[in-house]
Amino acid sequence: MQNQANPIEIMANELARLPGIGKKSAQRLAYYIVSMPKEDVKRLADSIWEGRSNIKLCEICGNYSSENLCEICSDERRNKNIICVVKEPRDLTAVERVHDYRGLYHVLHGVLSPMDNIGPNDLNIRSLLMRLADGDVQEVIVATNPDIEGEATASYLARLIKPMGIKVTRIAYGVPIGSDLEYADEVTLAKALEGRQEI
Amino acid sequence: MQNQANPIEIMANELARLPGIGKKSAQRLAYYIVSMPKEDVKRLADSIWEGRSNIKLCEICGNYSSENLCEICSDERRNKNIICVVKEPRDLTAVERVHDYRGLYHVLHGVLSPMDNIGPNDLNIRSLLMRLADGDVQEVIVATNPDIEGEATASYLARLIKPMGIKVTRIAYGVPIGSDLEYADEVTLAKALEGRQEI
Repeated sequence: MQNQANPIEIMANELARLPGIGKKSAQRLAYYIVSMPKEDVKRLADSIWEGRSNIKLCEICGNYSSENLCEICSDERRNKNIICVVKEPRDLTAVERVHDYRGLYHVLHGVLSPMDNIGPNDLNIRSLLMRLADGDVQEVIVATNPDIEGEATASYLARLIKPMGIKVTRIAYGVPIGSDLEYADEVTLAKALEGRQEI
Repeated sequence: MQNQANPIEIMANELARLPGIGKKSAQRLAYYIVSMPKEDVKRLADSIWEGRSNIKLCEICGNYSSENLCEICSDERRNKNIICVVKEPRDLTAVERVHDYRGLYHVLHGVLSPMDNIGPNDLNIRSLLMRLADGDVQEVIVATNPDIEGEATASYLARLIKPMGIKVTRIAYGVPIGSDLEYADEVTLAKALEGRQEI
């Protein structure tokens, strides 16, 4: 009964619904938040709600955006001849963090997954094909995850896009930079050998 | 520039200010929150803000409460002859979780710490002495953490309270030295209460 009425417990229960936050750390966070200056908590709560309510999907690429077009699609300096296809907006952010890639993106919002009943129509694929029909794009890099579903999605996209005369590439597999060969799993190592490059 | 304007980044930055949430997990959480149903996010943000803004300190014991008196102080069934003194409200919650203790509490909101310039006047001690002056209380259990500051605070309280003819006890060293009350498991905490010694 006490737990029902207590605002701290209510807050802790809401926090515990977030991924990676267990019951105990949710409670710890709730107690911390209650001890924070009110204006800081206001800013935190507002950033959460406003972040969620102000976000829409970019009409071109499907990235999260506060405007109708995301910052990348509306940036005239980006290379419009190349599109990098990712599963989720946070993957886009990861690629963007590299600062090497200057092309555009397309966010699928998922990958093909027969097990979860996710087919091509559940993904943001139709709008990708419409973008490609314009004729500007010369290459599509498929940067879905190197797992079964990511691979299946990449193959599916390649089958659709190649007949349009557009080059379809896949990000390279290999041992991660700075890692130890000894600890690489067999599949990764096999892929790294297979994809070896002349130096 | 992108990071300044982006609502997701703003949310991630606010989340990263919380203890135990690094920059990367804050970003992960922010992306997760953006993908949550709006009504769930509303409830989360409201619980955070309302939890903080509706909470005050119990006028008797200093515990967090949504009313002037906390649920424990206003519960007639609690044993008014015994007061358990804790450093923080979350320690009270930890003791309460044991379900063994049926007395009252007093929350100091800190411990003596000359290093941090925290003296007796910075703690909720005066109101404890006023409660004891009523004459109902026969025992004060000091359940501050088993560390240097917790010990010093316990000794200080014992010196103040014993002359009033009130028994002062310390929770037993069932709790591992140097640890945090909040993380003690129920059995350890129950043993510690059971084995309390007069100081």
